[in-house]
Amino acid sequence: MAELTRLSNGLTVAIDPMPGAQSAAIGLHAFVGSRSEPDGKGGLAHLVEHMVFKGTRSRGARAIAEAIEDVGGTLNAWTSRDQTSFHARTLAPDVGLALELIADLVRAPKLDEAELEREKLVILSELGECLDAPDDLIHDRLFEAAFGDQPLARPVLGSEPSILELTRQDCAAWLSDQYRPDRLVISAAGKVNPAQILQLAEALFGDLEATSASSNELAIFLGGTRSDRRSAEQTHLALGFRGLPASDDQAPALFAQAVGGGMSSRLFQELREERGLAYSIYAWTQGFADTGLFAVNLAADKGRATEALNLALATIEQAATDLSEAELNRARAQVEAGIQMALETPQGRADAMARSIEIFGRIMTVDEMLAEIRAVDASAARQAGQAMLAGPRAIASIGGKLALAA
Amino acid sequence: MAELTRLSNGLTVAIDPMPGAQSAAIGLHAFVGSRSEPDGKGGLAHLVEHMVFKGTRSRGARAIAEAIEDVGGTLNAWTSRDQTSFHARTLAPDVGLALELIADLVRAPKLDEAELEREKLVILSELGECLDAPDDLIHDRLFEAAFGDQPLARPVLGSEPSILELTRQDCAAWLSDQYRPDRLVISAAGKVNPAQILQLAEALFGDLEATSASSNELAIFLGGTRSDRRSAEQTHLALGFRGLPASDDQAPALFAQAVGGGMSSRLFQELREERGLAYSIYAWTQGFADTGLFAVNLAADKGRATEALNLALATIEQAATDLSEAELNRARAQVEAGIQMALETPQGRADAMARSIEIFGRIMTVDEMLAEIRAVDASAARQAGQAMLAGPRAIASIGGKLALAA
Repeated sequence: MAELTRLSNGLTVAIDPMPGAQSAAIGLHAFVGSRSEPDGKGGLAHLVEHMVFKGTRSRGARAIAEAIEDVGGTLNAWTSRDQTSFHARTLAPDVGLALELIADLVRAPKLDEAELEREKLVILSELGECLDAPDDLIHDRLFEAAFGDQPLARPVLGSEPSILELTRQDCAAWLSDQYRPDRLVISAAGKVNPAQILQLAEALFGDLEATSASSNELAIFLGGTRSDRRSAEQTHLALGFRGLPASDDQAPALFAQAVGGGMSSRLFQELREERGLAYSIYAWTQGFADTGLFAVNLAADKGRATEALNLALATIEQAATDLSEAELNRARAQVEAGIQMALETPQGRADAMARSIEIFGRIMTVDEMLAEIRAVDASAARQAGQAMLAGPRAIASIGGKLALAA
Repeated sequence: MAELTRLSNGLTVAIDPMPGAQSAAIGLHAFVGSRSEPDGKGGLAHLVEHMVFKGTRSRGARAIAEAIEDVGGTLNAWTSRDQTSFHARTLAPDVGLALELIADLVRAPKLDEAELEREKLVILSELGECLDAPDDLIHDRLFEAAFGDQPLARPVLGSEPSILELTRQDCAAWLSDQYRPDRLVISAAGKVNPAQILQLAEALFGDLEATSASSNELAIFLGGTRSDRRSAEQTHLALGFRGLPASDDQAPALFAQAVGGGMSSRLFQELREERGLAYSIYAWTQGFADTGLFAVNLAADKGRATEALNLALATIEQAATDLSEAELNRARAQVEAGIQMALETPQGRADAMARSIEIFGRIMTVDEMLAEIRAVDASAARQAGQAMLAGPRAIASIGGKLALAA
């Protein structure tokens, strides 16, 4: 049974012991990412995520790596537009060590100047790898097309000039201003002892001062186009629409699942199976606190990319008018089974709890999650589809020029 | 407790019921892949894997997709150089349906001519996506550098000309010649009823004639270089050495783990942490029936790629002479924990059983797997490293020219 505790400073601790597990997953989730960066500081959230691994007051970078890997564990981190997550997988006895290491990283990093300059080179290499991966890069281009100059449009990695200008002071200020207890969640699942985790959480984070971080500027999906002219074998495309915030109902997600979530979906059947227009073709939604996105991604032969894009648009427009109850039932079955399977693993449970706390401030039970899915019928999904299609559009492309039919 | 059964025609069934699971994983693994393709038929194994999804005598492509997704399951497949795998994830009640579908795919595919021509377009798009993903493509280039003109060097996807020439007859002959019971394994784990799976396996595959497939030409790691001049932001590199067959001991794998398997490894510390030369840097091994590969992959700034490659080589050469017991202990802990965590999920168990049967003809217990790892000490790992480094070298690059110091 999952338990949620709030420390007196506001930091949330979620723990879900799983009887059958031999291992554990534990993470610290800071609900702050690139969209909260000050203007001109693009890439700061991600740079800080890297820099804390470069050494703390008591451990060098090598000692951090050795401490977790000596016990066969893994410790990783990622940064998104609205979150920075530090997460470990360990065998059962080592979950406390993992939390101690994470606390050391985010509370006592050295932020050494020489290390900072070296880590910028690593991040420039990471940026180069992203620019070499059009199926990855197209997401950044879509956000730029959708959100224009707003902070939410900013790529998580930043740009070469913005990365090079970041300073030690920027990193230190980011940590002290943004890693505030009211937006920090420790989430642990698997073979864990709740009393031990809670005691450790209190010891490691209980003294963090209970100030709040400033909130984000509201984002508005504006729409537009963004063509990246770099050469590629295929034309990589994304077509996006204004979606709903993460806390809203599940109708947009089920619409996306039905039109492009699996191999029985309309987009897969129409574009890939019927016409051989694309290998990768899928629809997805993403929710933020204030807005959301519904999008279709595909990669197609250069000579057929415009045809593919127009057919994808026609297919989702059609689905918004006549998506059937049978199609919606299938989408629901896929989402429900996906939730149940994800919750079988420690990592899946720990992530789901963190996500639920971020959006709703509490841990949703499996039954609540399933009930949310079951509450959506075909009519609600069609309405969600129509509402999203009626709004502005964002189109991003890499490796080709194209035109959307009027 | 995992059970292995051989049907009278030689097909192997491995079943591992997991008490805590709510879902199941089931797969059919054919131990045949692109390396067994006749000359001039590059991409055939993979095309067949695609074509069986395009319709059977009793189901169209859409009906196949709907059947599994109606119950929230997933059914996918992949092809490698020595394996073709069809695998499903379902909730517990639907595992039998999944096996029925897989049997229908591989035993009664229609192989329709019009569908074949359309599916070639899908695969050409897949090939284009692969060419657009240098971190993926570099693996193909490394195999070409290592194995020259031999079948093992052939890319799984084939090439545009080879794909376009494949026929319905090629596909039919491939299925009847290669999908023989002595190289087929059904592997199921999770919430499964062994008696039900076994009965189904017998009913669906028991009548398959007990003939054997022809065996592969032995592959020899020759070494060489392969430079792909396509443009890229980073130079993507792979440096490979002759490794051991999959059935051999674990010393090469532990050497690879210690030199480049985690963030405490020598390559990560030397190239990334100490010098900021690369974001991605890792070592790996892969074993086949007759040969193996030990390799280091990295992506680096164009101006520093030669430096990165030479330092990577010097780092592994150094490790082959002085890798310490502490480093080897850490590598062992990582591999052991990785095995234990993988075996917590239905998919991880089903895959591990199939792999064990492919290599050893039986299911290894967790204890046996762990004992294999524990049998390797630092001296054995160093010797494995020295032996691999003494052999020929394969170097592949994309997006840059480079030179290896003498």
